[in-house]
Amino acid sequence: MKAAVENENAKIKIIPLGGLEQIGMNMTVYEYEDNILVVDCGLSFPDDEMLGIDLVIPDITYLKENADKIKGIVITHGHEDHIGALPYVLREINAPIYATKLTMAIIDGKLKEHGMEKTVKKKVVKTGQSINLGCFRVEFIKVNHSIADSVGFAIFTPAGVIVHTGDFKIDYTPLYGDTTDLTRFGELGKKGVLAMMSDSTNVLKPGFTASERTVAKTIDQLFAENVGHRIIVATFASNVDRVRQIINSACKYGRKVVIEGRSMVNIINIARELEYIQVSDDTIIDVEDMKNYTDGQIVLITTGSQGESMAALSRMAASIHKKVTIKPNDTVIFSSSPIPGNEKAVSKVINELSMKGATVIFQDTHVSGHACQEEIKLMYSLVKPKYCIPAHGEYRHLKGTAELAESMGIPKDHIFILSSGDVLTLSEKEGIVTDHVPAGSVLVDGLGVGDVGNIVLRDRQNLAENGIIIVVMTFEKYSNQLLAGPDIVSRGFVYVRGAENLLEDARKVVNDAVLGCVEKNISDWGKIKMVVKETLSEYLWKKIKRNPMILPIIMEVE
Amino acid sequence: MKAAVENENAKIKIIPLGGLEQIGMNMTVYEYEDNILVVDCGLSFPDDEMLGIDLVIPDITYLKENADKIKGIVITHGHEDHIGALPYVLREINAPIYATKLTMAIIDGKLKEHGMEKTVKKKVVKTGQSINLGCFRVEFIKVNHSIADSVGFAIFTPAGVIVHTGDFKIDYTPLYGDTTDLTRFGELGKKGVLAMMSDSTNVLKPGFTASERTVAKTIDQLFAENVGHRIIVATFASNVDRVRQIINSACKYGRKVVIEGRSMVNIINIARELEYIQVSDDTIIDVEDMKNYTDGQIVLITTGSQGESMAALSRMAASIHKKVTIKPNDTVIFSSSPIPGNEKAVSKVINELSMKGATVIFQDTHVSGHACQEEIKLMYSLVKPKYCIPAHGEYRHLKGTAELAESMGIPKDHIFILSSGDVLTLSEKEGIVTDHVPAGSVLVDGLGVGDVGNIVLRDRQNLAENGIIIVVMTFEKYSNQLLAGPDIVSRGFVYVRGAENLLEDARKVVNDAVLGCVEKNISDWGKIKMVVKETLSEYLWKKIKRNPMILPIIMEVE
Repeated sequence: MKAAVENENAKIKIIPLGGLEQIGMNMTVYEYEDNILVVDCGLSFPDDEMLGIDLVIPDITYLKENADKIKGIVITHGHEDHIGALPYVLREINAPIYATKLTMAIIDGKLKEHGMEKTVKKKVVKTGQSINLGCFRVEFIKVNHSIADSVGFAIFTPAGVIVHTGDFKIDYTPLYGDTTDLTRFGELGKKGVLAMMSDSTNVLKPGFTASERTVAKTIDQLFAENVGHRIIVATFASNVDRVRQIINSACKYGRKVVIEGRSMVNIINIARELEYIQVSDDTIIDVEDMKNYTDGQIVLITTGSQGESMAALSRMAASIHKKVTIKPNDTVIFSSSPIPGNEKAVSKVINELSMKGATVIFQDTHVSGHACQEEIKLMYSLVKPKYCIPAHGEYRHLKGTAELAESMGIPKDHIFILSSGDVLTLSEKEGIVTDHVPAGSVLVDGLGVGDVGNIVLRDRQNLAENGIIIVVMTFEKYSNQLLAGPDIVSRGFVYVRGAENLLEDARKVVNDAVLGCVEKNISDWGKIKMVVKETLSEYLWKKIKRNPMILPIIMEVE
Repeated sequence: MKAAVENENAKIKIIPLGGLEQIGMNMTVYEYEDNILVVDCGLSFPDDEMLGIDLVIPDITYLKENADKIKGIVITHGHEDHIGALPYVLREINAPIYATKLTMAIIDGKLKEHGMEKTVKKKVVKTGQSINLGCFRVEFIKVNHSIADSVGFAIFTPAGVIVHTGDFKIDYTPLYGDTTDLTRFGELGKKGVLAMMSDSTNVLKPGFTASERTVAKTIDQLFAENVGHRIIVATFASNVDRVRQIINSACKYGRKVVIEGRSMVNIINIARELEYIQVSDDTIIDVEDMKNYTDGQIVLITTGSQGESMAALSRMAASIHKKVTIKPNDTVIFSSSPIPGNEKAVSKVINELSMKGATVIFQDTHVSGHACQEEIKLMYSLVKPKYCIPAHGEYRHLKGTAELAESMGIPKDHIFILSSGDVLTLSEKEGIVTDHVPAGSVLVDGLGVGDVGNIVLRDRQNLAENGIIIVVMTFEKYSNQLLAGPDIVSRGFVYVRGAENLLEDARKVVNDAVLGCVEKNISDWGKIKMVVKETLSEYLWKKIKRNPMILPIIMEVE
């Protein structure tokens, strides 16, 4: 085993490329001389103002410029905010991926969807094992989280050991598998840890996050109380332990299991293949066969716990699901909490389900996958890092971890609240932000990666709020004679059939403006367009206090 | 005093025109023969999918058709969801308004903004007083809520007494004024109440809503703990008692008060004029004079507690407020909870404030203005209504109140979960939904009321997500000769300067399609437009998996 520190002057660079401005898009670069190790490669979901955007990935300009240095990408767990950018990033940089079994199976599925399953080098690593990547040794350490097979990393570097917790909680009574490997974190701490990059998600919440077992108990109880009712449970597809527990309760109470929603079907298939979920084939039935059973013999496990409009549960609630109709005898359990921003969508689904007479249960049926204050303190007291880098959070969360670390005795100048792109250079002697590399969000819309930016988004925002009015006219090229128009066409502005007068008046206003230009012999079409825009804009604001996008188009005929 | 019931066969109609599908847009019609009484006249704020909409008001077709029957509009309290539609409704129907002093002052301000202060008949009524409106007698009964001068109504009708609670909580230790008039509600109950329409907002929450006094204590404590820091408190402008208490704490700790945000300035002016807030002129200082004081001598009371992007606090957080700059020595208190849907916006402001070094406090500094389960039970046990109409909530809240009423012994068939527009006909003998009148949402966008409907919103949604491509061409009218174009112009689709090839290829595809039409001698321009639309749409989907709105425009030259 390498010594914890080979060289007191050795300097390691830590460069987060995402995960520090929001919960999402986690990606961190560890760089030592000609060696780069990448931890995680996540996406984030678009903000409300990112109209029409499908997903958001980190800007990897820095990695592209240093592609030859990259030794590998190690992944903490299989959530989208840690693996979702892989298909995009792997198109640009060719690096091998290392992950635990379930995580890798989920990545495989993703790569297959993008037709990349054969071009990427991959290796499955077990917890407790280490891999050598250039000058780095990376040890995979068991942590609890809301998806099975989650790990944190001890990264052994010439400048010292860095602990990268990944997303974690400490579950003393996990449903399956072991507790977060506290002993190993303690051993590392005892030998000396240069820095820790740690999960800040729940740092503003005091106490401990409850065990997954408490949810299992509640769900089991709900099965006991709802004999004779059809039970529908919506949860995160990726929470394999939760899904496994729901299936166990189903077996215990003699119910068949129907699985709905693409991602739920995918994950359960993967988990069954890997034997993370062991269930006899006759327990899982097809949705078509539901009619052969009574309500009391069925549990339906479905996606849609976040109120996503296209997910299975939302479609059932809105009566547009082809195969499942909600009935008064249904008990619908939301085994989830709304992710911030989804509250209204979830309420909408609950209301729709209630209107159909279903009983809806959405309290005490979920626990977080992230450590609260006392667990984070426990981790700090075990690892005792010299330097602390709060990660996985919005600024207020990072600040919360910084304050907590300070309260644990870490000096303020050893705590770094970084921004994406910051280059933190650490050695036993000192820690300084020495540089800043390109970083930020790249928007993905359909097949386009990065072709929608601020200008397009600003246009979409304007179109969304006010609609558009197009003014077209045709001029003869040399004579400047107005051959046709100006005509007005609008979309998203006003209901045309109730606003004939307004639009006709607008046309007249534009017509007068154009004729005015013609009379003045203005032949600069940019000028004419500007006059049209200003005149019409002013008219509409005065008349109706609205500000549609106005787009004058001039065609020329030779 | 009229007897509780004049006639066992007398039938009263209760017609909610809003407030039952959402929290917002409260408006209820009580109708007896040729007498109509309207309770409240509120707006709601647009849902996320109502792009560009400013506010939403109830459809009052039914009132317009029965305008001659309307005896008056009585208002429970001065929140937007109870008074906000008045300026729009009063343009259509001319009816006198009755409200308590503060409520009327807020309404006055609103009418002034719309230039209607002189055309509307108004009368201020005190709690405990009654007014006669046609065959109705309406008694104003003191209730606690998050705005001063809130009332519920006992409506004496020939068919019996109806209690309309309005928004209420029961605060045994209010900061100012009395507790909800429990005795009066009890007296009414003892004599016999036909029906109660009651607040359902917090019915899913067990226990009691905490007293406003608990917040006052916390705020006072925060003033004690933050000596030397500038204190900034963001809260709901309309919560006059809260604002008054903050000013009191300021006086106690020798701080001057700066008021920021238009609605905060308005409400405090009104409250001072009415002497609801009594404070010496030298305590309130202008924002310009802040520089003459130390941080520890200042408290700034501001709007923006919901993260509204244009509110004062949000502008301070984003460094675009002209007069206030956030500093590390600031302690910012959010004396509010995020209204569902505003969570992300509030988080954004908290993050921005934290980044500027300010300490942000957002826990234990707010209580709700609505009754929880035990308070609602208390109200039912006092009023003992024969029929129960849950109001002020989404469906799940209404259902919660229905279940609670049932648990209190009200028979299931005496409980009515109504939809807006339902006509509930009640008598001592029976309650039946006998009819349905037009009801729903009317969207207000700028000065336009109701001119934006589903078609326009669908266009805006499409424009928002995908942008627009306009294809223009000019044809000679008789020869069908293509004189100019087709040209392509796009907005909100793709960043044009990185997508020259895509757009040029798209133009070629369209050009070929148009020339194909010309060669085939197609002179039906609708057909040509369709071909352009389909060809381009297919090409773009194949190429980039996006679906912009495509708008072909043909101009004709004679």
